[in-house]
Amino acid sequence: EGAIAVPTEDGRIAVRIVSGLSQSDPPDVMRGEETQIAGLVAGSPEFDGIVCLPGTHSKWVRVQGGRVEWFRTLMTGELFALLSERSVLRHSVGEGWSDAAFDAGVRAALADPDALMPGLFALRSEALLGDLDGGNARARLSGLLIGAELSAMRTAWTAYPVAIVASAALARRYEAALAPHGAQVTRCDGEALTLAGLRANRAILEAKP
Amino acid sequence: EGAIAVPTEDGRIAVRIVSGLSQSDPPDVMRGEETQIAGLVAGSPEFDGIVCLPGTHSKWVRVQGGRVEWFRTLMTGELFALLSERSVLRHSVGEGWSDAAFDAGVRAALADPDALMPGLFALRSEALLGDLDGGNARARLSGLLIGAELSAMRTAWTAYPVAIVASAALARRYEAALAPHGAQVTRCDGEALTLAGLRANRAILEAKP
Repeated sequence: EGAIAVPTEDGRIAVRIVSGLSQSDPPDVMRGEETQIAGLVAGSPEFDGIVCLPGTHSKWVRVQGGRVEWFRTLMTGELFALLSERSVLRHSVGEGWSDAAFDAGVRAALADPDALMPGLFALRSEALLGDLDGGNARARLSGLLIGAELSAMRTAWTAYPVAIVASAALARRYEAALAPHGAQVTRCDGEALTLAGLRANRAILEAKP
Repeated sequence: EGAIAVPTEDGRIAVRIVSGLSQSDPPDVMRGEETQIAGLVAGSPEFDGIVCLPGTHSKWVRVQGGRVEWFRTLMTGELFALLSERSVLRHSVGEGWSDAAFDAGVRAALADPDALMPGLFALRSEALLGDLDGGNARARLSGLLIGAELSAMRTAWTAYPVAIVASAALARRYEAALAPHGAQVTRCDGEALTLAGLRANRAILEAKP
């Protein structure tokens, strides 16, 4: 259901587009991530928790009984790209990384979501005043934004186990942010879930031609 | 003090650059707004409150006894420009305005600072689902960001009267956001304060040659 056949010139190829999800209250849309969720459910039909798919537009998805109950999207990755590449902070954010600075940013935003807004320009000020190098600024900015995301989704990850679906590096970053605050986290291989989801979709389509 | 003479080719012109302010804890810098604050203090030496200078980098400045006690910078205007012009939200933000949508955004962020992060992508979703036009999206985005700024600065504007220094349109927007929540707000003419501040600086320089 929801799969749309696309005309092809080569009769050996049959293309179907599987629709995404939309939610009316609160309004939200998903276009792509549902494939990975289908892959997760195909492999773990009993999964009862939150699927977190971090990225440009991070998705937090409540999955129970093989169904998506609700989901929420936060523009965390896009905000990081805009702020680090196109805002005044680009002069202060450089190469490199610091786990301690990332952790400090996460903790600041989780302890008080009001820390995000003043915490952004403080990166610029602290760099100008000579106390913050580019790698520390990058890591703290990432921590502040991911901390704000986690603060907004706190009721989800405190109530349910969280399966993180992402590249290995990004999944480890979210696990590092979540685990110290009591979340029960597992990491999933995003590419494997995408393939599993496509196989599951194909099986459904072939079962009802 | 802090005024640096600049060489000129024409002997009839004497140029001085007056330094800005820096603050070490929390780190912050000010480069320009101090002139308007000097103008405000020159006209109202007894001013005891907060000077709010909204804009690309909004400044909240505690002024007492003719001195700046502390200040804080928030990138509210730059975030609005980045999100409305360069993020995925640019497809949903259009011309037009709605006072009611602005007010809804302010109230949502003030009631819960965790509303900001999910509230951003919701603008895109709500527009895609057909329930939000471009002017309403623009006003709600502005309201969410200004509401987050006000939430972060709540202890300032609940404790002290606020003088807003900005263009008439921007000052009215901040007054509309602050006044319903109990703040004691006055609006100041930014250009008049700039000129008054420059005159005050010149008088100081001429008094001690």
